[in-house]
Amino acid sequence: MGSLPYDSVPKYNVLVVGSGGVGTMAAYAMEKSAKSAVTAVLRSNYAAVKRRGFNIDSRDHGNIIGWKPTHIRETIPDLAREAHIQPYDFIVVTTKNLADVPPSVAEIIAPAVTPGRTAIALLQNGLNIERPVVAAFPSNPVISGVPYIGAIEKPAGTIKHVNHDRLIVSPFCNPNIPASVSEEAARSFRDAYSCRAVTCEYEPDVRYARWRKLLYNASYNTVAAILGMDTSRMRVSEHVIDGLVRPAMREIQAAARVVAPGVELPDELIEELIRIDTYEGFFKPSMLQDVEKGKFIEFENIIGEPLREAEKHGVSMPTLKVVYALLKGLQWKTMEANGLVEVPRDCTPGMKYGKKGGR
Amino acid sequence: MGSLPYDSVPKYNVLVVGSGGVGTMAAYAMEKSAKSAVTAVLRSNYAAVKRRGFNIDSRDHGNIIGWKPTHIRETIPDLAREAHIQPYDFIVVTTKNLADVPPSVAEIIAPAVTPGRTAIALLQNGLNIERPVVAAFPSNPVISGVPYIGAIEKPAGTIKHVNHDRLIVSPFCNPNIPASVSEEAARSFRDAYSCRAVTCEYEPDVRYARWRKLLYNASYNTVAAILGMDTSRMRVSEHVIDGLVRPAMREIQAAARVVAPGVELPDELIEELIRIDTYEGFFKPSMLQDVEKGKFIEFENIIGEPLREAEKHGVSMPTLKVVYALLKGLQWKTMEANGLVEVPRDCTPGMKYGKKGGR
Repeated sequence: MGSLPYDSVPKYNVLVVGSGGVGTMAAYAMEKSAKSAVTAVLRSNYAAVKRRGFNIDSRDHGNIIGWKPTHIRETIPDLAREAHIQPYDFIVVTTKNLADVPPSVAEIIAPAVTPGRTAIALLQNGLNIERPVVAAFPSNPVISGVPYIGAIEKPAGTIKHVNHDRLIVSPFCNPNIPASVSEEAARSFRDAYSCRAVTCEYEPDVRYARWRKLLYNASYNTVAAILGMDTSRMRVSEHVIDGLVRPAMREIQAAARVVAPGVELPDELIEELIRIDTYEGFFKPSMLQDVEKGKFIEFENIIGEPLREAEKHGVSMPTLKVVYALLKGLQWKTMEANGLVEVPRDCTPGMKYGKKGGR
Repeated sequence: MGSLPYDSVPKYNVLVVGSGGVGTMAAYAMEKSAKSAVTAVLRSNYAAVKRRGFNIDSRDHGNIIGWKPTHIRETIPDLAREAHIQPYDFIVVTTKNLADVPPSVAEIIAPAVTPGRTAIALLQNGLNIERPVVAAFPSNPVISGVPYIGAIEKPAGTIKHVNHDRLIVSPFCNPNIPASVSEEAARSFRDAYSCRAVTCEYEPDVRYARWRKLLYNASYNTVAAILGMDTSRMRVSEHVIDGLVRPAMREIQAAARVVAPGVELPDELIEELIRIDTYEGFFKPSMLQDVEKGKFIEFENIIGEPLREAEKHGVSMPTLKVVYALLKGLQWKTMEANGLVEVPRDCTPGMKYGKKGGR
């Protein structure tokens, strides 16, 4: 593996996979930084964006009509077949991370990855999301991006970006390559992303930003999805906060201390996060939005992995354990609706709980 | 308080409050026993039943067209104002027990209760349901009825009764009157209910039947309501059973041992109950049916009281604690929909979690 040419090219060649709110704003920031030429892979919004570009109403960038990145396409570039495409310096993944629903992130991006060259930036939530990517691309740096941005796409091609774009960037550990290479990749990505309007910060240690974001995502996001309640109503009810949200946050806090020594998430941060959403916004966290739309939820890395890490370290998470089991049940229903699991009309042999009853 | 005249009257004067599936079949059994004259208080089905009676398709009693109990009425009899009404020997309550939503059972039946005479039979699920009734009517016997019956009303006045009517009857403890009076009331009620087609059993100790029924109601019933899943799908998924239903049942089992010494709910019973519903029935437990209809759920006595009793006795119920908090959240949503709680559009002073945020 040669040294990465981050300083030798006039513009980084960047592929953004997942152009919803987060992906589009990432593509926009990287083009605006003037250090990147972005190819965006679009799916449901391809036709709309091809025709009239993105319309973006952005807190950071103002009102933008008809914007397009350097290239848009409908499929993942296949570098083995599309010889004219230059290797990508960065692949920026902003899809949901659905560890339990194929295809995996690694499978999706594989045709576009140049071994030993492409740095893969995962702008996604959750713990241990890098593991399958490192396993699939052992010679590539993997970058952790923890986005704090509120940006939703509705309808296709129209982005409303309401919260300042703050992105925490760190190197994920890839034990197969020198740490300095991973660090350089993450720093270069920070430079490629940074423009005047956004905040992109390099943090050497990936753990704090990931665990900190779990505080909200493993509690508000999950409970909202199960109850079908926005965060303002959860706060008005009080007992949803007292009985579920804060206990879940405290379990993340306790697990972080043991699983990631040195990561201290103070009580004050918990109390701040409980009130972080603008009350008047009646905000529906992303997992609830997905449940309402019948979409898959990304819960394995947001709650499953913290739970497994905590159990491995002897930390009990009684609230999150039950919440996790319920989310798995909700996901199972979506799987059934999408034909991924089958419900026989009669008992079939070998069914674990299939023995006929009769009250 | 004189002795109860259960043997001195030709027929017991019975008031049935709550004429859905369970209430109608109770009224039918008591009239059929020929020992009771039943007045049924009907609400949403009053007009339909007044016009053409009940149509009952019963596993125990066959097909019955146009049946009416001795009297039907729309309101609770007010004995102080309706002087022609004889005192009731039994008031049979088959409504849901909504401890958290007024009016209470005691408030509902109060105008029809003759102190020192009327025995109040609660054919309802859950723990400690007798406490507010004993407190409100200290001189009256209170009878525990644990029904094992599958009977639903749909549409109004039409009952489908699919499972054999088996009713466990016991005296609830009322410390203000001699135990023998409570026991005699329960035995008389058993006689008043018993006819050839149904099974009505007297058990001296109320605890076993109540805790045993909690095994199912605190697990399948509650989890189905939260997930919106029938019990067959829960079984096909397997992990909903392994991660939620069985753990909840084991917590009830462990609590029963400590809270109600002598009540032993064996492992085999748990495994039997997991498979108790006919798989082909894709059965939706009552709490799920209520959630789907936007009705209040009776969760305080089914899960709240067992939880409080267990905590009092130092038994931890980690699964049921979270399930309880979630059900309380679901109930809160129904309360909002019914105008019982208010959601301000803006933060109001004194709001516990009202401080404005902003990410």
